[in-house]
Amino acid sequence: MKFSPLVDELIQSLRCLPGVGPKSAQRMAFQLLERDRRAGLKLATALGSAMSDVGHCQSCRTFTEESLCPICASAKRGRAGIICVVETPADVLAIEAGGHFNGRYFVLLGHLSPLDGVGPEELGLARLEQHLAEGEVTELILATNPTVEGDATAHFIADIARRYEVSISRIAHGVPVGGELEYVDSTTLALSFNGRLPL
Amino acid sequence: MKFSPLVDELIQSLRCLPGVGPKSAQRMAFQLLERDRRAGLKLATALGSAMSDVGHCQSCRTFTEESLCPICASAKRGRAGIICVVETPADVLAIEAGGHFNGRYFVLLGHLSPLDGVGPEELGLARLEQHLAEGEVTELILATNPTVEGDATAHFIADIARRYEVSISRIAHGVPVGGELEYVDSTTLALSFNGRLPL
Repeated sequence: MKFSPLVDELIQSLRCLPGVGPKSAQRMAFQLLERDRRAGLKLATALGSAMSDVGHCQSCRTFTEESLCPICASAKRGRAGIICVVETPADVLAIEAGGHFNGRYFVLLGHLSPLDGVGPEELGLARLEQHLAEGEVTELILATNPTVEGDATAHFIADIARRYEVSISRIAHGVPVGGELEYVDSTTLALSFNGRLPL
Repeated sequence: MKFSPLVDELIQSLRCLPGVGPKSAQRMAFQLLERDRRAGLKLATALGSAMSDVGHCQSCRTFTEESLCPICASAKRGRAGIICVVETPADVLAIEAGGHFNGRYFVLLGHLSPLDGVGPEELGLARLEQHLAEGEVTELILATNPTVEGDATAHFIADIARRYEVSISRIAHGVPVGGELEYVDSTTLALSFNGRLPL
């Protein structure tokens, strides 16, 4: 036995969300139907308008419904002349939460992955090079993830950036603050020794 | 820094789903925006129509957009004269998956919980009593959850049903098939001894 068509359709559709299997989808559908139809309708509207209207910032490629995202639109952030390259919009949020970076971002929306058909074009590297060619950027910080693909992407971008007058750096990798040496993996520990700073 | 208004709204709205916190909501929103806008739009439509159109079956109170759910609409299921009382529509699905029950259901959509303002009226017990008064029901199986509230609800319904000519039973509680005695809690074990059957 299945549920009635509309309920069934809702449960099936909820499974498009990451990490939601058949049981969770069922629980979500019943929770909304039983307890919170208003929230469900609000979610339907929010989903509809976000899916149709949200595009990419023309300057940094993050998600926005305007032509420029709030950070790129801010003149103050542009004055610093620093661009930080990250993989996802979530990374932007993580860095902004610290409040220590006052430059702009460039969001790759992925990393180089030839097997999945993700090349320089998919990452918008032409747009990044255009930023560099305009000459307003003095520093490029590569903050892609410390994974094989992230590192490869960082090196690839560094190779492009060397053609322009811009200082290029990669964020430091090492023991996280509050972590214990005992539980840190050997690669991270090796990187933290290589990247040691004079005290 | 926040995201742009539409993205922010989407992330906030996704948090109405059970078990979805700020990080999961963000991941869901980005996954849909980056990878699967079509699925997102489909979900928006499914949510919208389910929230507006799905009501309750007039006979058993489960979710359906028709006046009767498929089970209540089936003459074959009514002929058995058995009603199984469950707490949620998900319980109906669990019992139907077994395929061993050929009667109808009555879905309480909750359990008695005076502190939360859930009384006999909220559980639709008047409708259930009406079924009993019509005289077509010969057996009432109480399959509420084996919790304090579920048990209380079962006893409350049994008290009502005793006024009518109907046999009343509660589903058996005991050691689940495939379980190991060693890991079964003492209350369940005690119930399984009390409910032992001649072999």
